[in-house]
Amino acid sequence: MTTESAASGTVQVRLRNPDRTVEAPAPCTVGELLDGLDILPHTVLVIDGAQLLTADRLLLPDAEVEVRPVISGGAEGAPRCVVCRAPAVHEEPRHRAAWCSAHLADHVHNQVRKAIDRPPDRPSGERMFHYGQRLLVAVSGGKDSLALWDALLAMGYDVDGLYVGLGIGGYSSRSQRVCEAFATARGLTLHVVDLAERYGYSTPSGSDATGRSTCGVCGLSKRYVFDQVAVEQDYDVLLTGHNLDDEAATLLGNVLRWNEGFLARQRPVLAARAVNQRRKCKPMFRLSERESAAYCVVRGIEYVVEECPLVDGNTGHELKAALDLLEAASPGLKAQFVFGFLERVADRFVDQDDAGVRRELRACTSCEMPTTTDTCAFCRQREAILAVLPLAGSGVRT
Amino acid sequence: MTTESAASGTVQVRLRNPDRTVEAPAPCTVGELLDGLDILPHTVLVIDGAQLLTADRLLLPDAEVEVRPVISGGAEGAPRCVVCRAPAVHEEPRHRAAWCSAHLADHVHNQVRKAIDRPPDRPSGERMFHYGQRLLVAVSGGKDSLALWDALLAMGYDVDGLYVGLGIGGYSSRSQRVCEAFATARGLTLHVVDLAERYGYSTPSGSDATGRSTCGVCGLSKRYVFDQVAVEQDYDVLLTGHNLDDEAATLLGNVLRWNEGFLARQRPVLAARAVNQRRKCKPMFRLSERESAAYCVVRGIEYVVEECPLVDGNTGHELKAALDLLEAASPGLKAQFVFGFLERVADRFVDQDDAGVRRELRACTSCEMPTTTDTCAFCRQREAILAVLPLAGSGVRT
Repeated sequence: MTTESAASGTVQVRLRNPDRTVEAPAPCTVGELLDGLDILPHTVLVIDGAQLLTADRLLLPDAEVEVRPVISGGAEGAPRCVVCRAPAVHEEPRHRAAWCSAHLADHVHNQVRKAIDRPPDRPSGERMFHYGQRLLVAVSGGKDSLALWDALLAMGYDVDGLYVGLGIGGYSSRSQRVCEAFATARGLTLHVVDLAERYGYSTPSGSDATGRSTCGVCGLSKRYVFDQVAVEQDYDVLLTGHNLDDEAATLLGNVLRWNEGFLARQRPVLAARAVNQRRKCKPMFRLSERESAAYCVVRGIEYVVEECPLVDGNTGHELKAALDLLEAASPGLKAQFVFGFLERVADRFVDQDDAGVRRELRACTSCEMPTTTDTCAFCRQREAILAVLPLAGSGVRT
Repeated sequence: MTTESAASGTVQVRLRNPDRTVEAPAPCTVGELLDGLDILPHTVLVIDGAQLLTADRLLLPDAEVEVRPVISGGAEGAPRCVVCRAPAVHEEPRHRAAWCSAHLADHVHNQVRKAIDRPPDRPSGERMFHYGQRLLVAVSGGKDSLALWDALLAMGYDVDGLYVGLGIGGYSSRSQRVCEAFATARGLTLHVVDLAERYGYSTPSGSDATGRSTCGVCGLSKRYVFDQVAVEQDYDVLLTGHNLDDEAATLLGNVLRWNEGFLARQRPVLAARAVNQRRKCKPMFRLSERESAAYCVVRGIEYVVEECPLVDGNTGHELKAALDLLEAASPGLKAQFVFGFLERVADRFVDQDDAGVRRELRACTSCEMPTTTDTCAFCRQREAILAVLPLAGSGVRT
C-alpha cells in the first residue's frame, strides 16, 4: 500500500432512525462529515465507541462513527472544557460552554440539583423533594428518564423505577429490556405494569377501538398508571424525565392556542391536591434533549434511540422543529421562554371552568383516583375501549 | 412543426427576490411547476399577466408566468369561488375557502370592516374609527399599506397617505414612486417626508453613526414621523398596514421572551393617551400577507415586491418561518394565536416599570411629543446620530 492510498479512504458512518450505514470520504473532520451528509451539527451526537466527538476532530480512513439524532439543542464553538481545559466532548451554545466527560456529568447534576433546590414556581425555600422521601421515577427506556434516574442515584436519592408496557410491538419490548437491564445492573427496584395485562387494552388496540389518536390513548393511560402505582406503592413523589425541549414545545403549543387550563398546570412541580394524588416533579426541566443524550453517552447508559413507531402526526415534533429554528438563531431562547413563563407569567393562568370557577378535585366514582368530573377520563376511556374490543384483555403482547 | 413538438416545450417562469427567469418543461400544471421548482405552493402567488392561477391550472408551452413570494399563508383545495362557484383565483386553507377575483376583494373588505366595527380588545360597541373622521394611512409602497388604503377608499372612508423616505438607495426611491403613482392615479393626498431632509439622517447613515441595527433606527424613526405628521396635520386616526402574519410574528417574539411591556402594547387599536398623540389602528390585522398580496393583484394595485435590502438579521423572518411551519400543519393557528391573545389574554399584561408602576406619558423636553422619559427615544437617537455624522444633513439621498 502506498502512502497516498493509506492517506485517503472512507469512514463508515452508522446513521440511526432508520438504522443504516453510509460511507464518507476520509480523512475529514467531524464537521466536514456532517456537512457532506447535510446534517446540522446541533441536531446530532457523533460517537466513536463510547466517546463523543467534537466538530474539529479528524476522522482517519477506516474510522467508524455513529451519528445519533437527538432532535434538538445546539453545538459549536470552544472545544475545551470550561472547568478543566481538557478537550471537550460536548458544547452547549445556550451556556456558551463546553465540557469534558466528567464535567459534563457534573453540569447535568448541577442543573438537576438547581431544579430540585429552587423550583421557579414554588414559594422561596421550598424544594421539589427531600432526601429520605420515597421517590418513583417513570422510565420509558429513553434518554431522559434513565439519565434522571442515574443522576438522582449519583446524588444519593432513594429512587425506584416504574416501566409501563404499552404494547407497541418490538418497540415496547426493547424499551422494557433496556429499563430492566439498567435496574438489574445497579440492583434497583423496577415496577413493571403491562397495560394489556392489568387494564385489558394496549395503546394500538385502544386507539383502534375508539378512533382516538395513539398518542392520546397512550398519554392518558401512562399518566394514570404512574399516579396509581405511586399511590398503591406509597411513594412520596412521582418524577418524570421531561426536559427543556419537551417543556418549551408543550408551552408553545399551549400558548399558540392560549389554552388556559393547560397553561395553569404546566409546572415542574405539581403539588398533591387530593388523597389519592402524589406530588409530581420534573427535575430535568432545565436540561436540553441534547444534554440529556450526551449525559447518557458519557455515563455509559444504554437507552432506546429509536422513536416510537406510532409517533406520526404527533404535533410535538412540529413545535420542536419550529423552536429549533428559532433557538439556532438565538441560543437560549427556549430557556428564556420556559423559565420566563414560570418566573413571571405562569401565575396569571388559573385552571377554571367556563364560568370562572376553579376546578376542584374529587374521587372518581369508579376507581377513586382524583378527577374534576364524576368518572375520571381514564375510566371513561377504558370503558369505551373495552365495550368495543372483541375480547377484553386481548391487547397486543410482544 | 409536428403535433408532437407543439405539444411539449417550456414555460418561462419569472422568480422574484432576486429577480430571475428560469424555464420549466411544459405542459404542466401550476402545482407540478412549483413542485419541480421545490417551492411550497402556500408561500407564493402564481400570476399570468394580471391573473392569479390556482394549482390545477394547466400551463402550455411558451406560457409565461410570475412566481411571486408572499412569505406566508396557505393555499390548496377547492378551485371554485365559495360565493358564486366561478373558477377561483385564490384559496385560503385557514378559511377552508376559495374566491373568484371579485369575491376575493369582497372577502378582504369584509375582514377589514369586521376589524373596524368590532376590534376585539375594545369595549363592546366601540369602533376603530368613524366615517367623517380624518384618517392618515402610513404607506411604504408594499402590498399591505396600499391594499389598506385602497380598501378603505372603496368602503367610502376619507383617507390621506403618508410616505416616509428612509434613504435606502434605489429601494426607497422605487417605493416612493409607487406610492406617488397610486395617489396620483386616484387624485389622493400623499404627504411625503424625507428623513434626511427633515431630520438630518437616513436609515443607513443613522445606523452607521450609532452602531444600532438599521431595523432599529428605521422603526423608531418611522413611528415617530407617523405620529408627528398625524399631529401636525391634525388627523384623527393613524393607520398602518400590519397584517395577521406581522402580528403573529411580533406576538410570538414577545411571548418567547415574555416581554410584558410589548405584550401590553400589542393591540389593533391603541387609544390616544396624551395631547400630542393620535389613536392608532391596524385594520388589516385579520388578513394574512398572502390575502393582502392577492388583493393587490386582483385590484390592479402596483406594489413594491422586493424586500428591503437592509433586512438581513431581521429576526421577524425567523419568527415568520417558524409560524409558517406550524400553520402548514394546522391552518388557522396564527389567527387562533393572535385573536385568542386579544380576546382572552391581553388584559393580563400591563405596561409598567420594574417597581410595578404603570408608565405615564409626558411631553418630551425637546420636541413635546409624548414619552415615558424626559427626552423621547427619537430625540435621544437623533442627537446621538447628529453628534457623529460628519456633516449634519448628509443622509444618503437617491
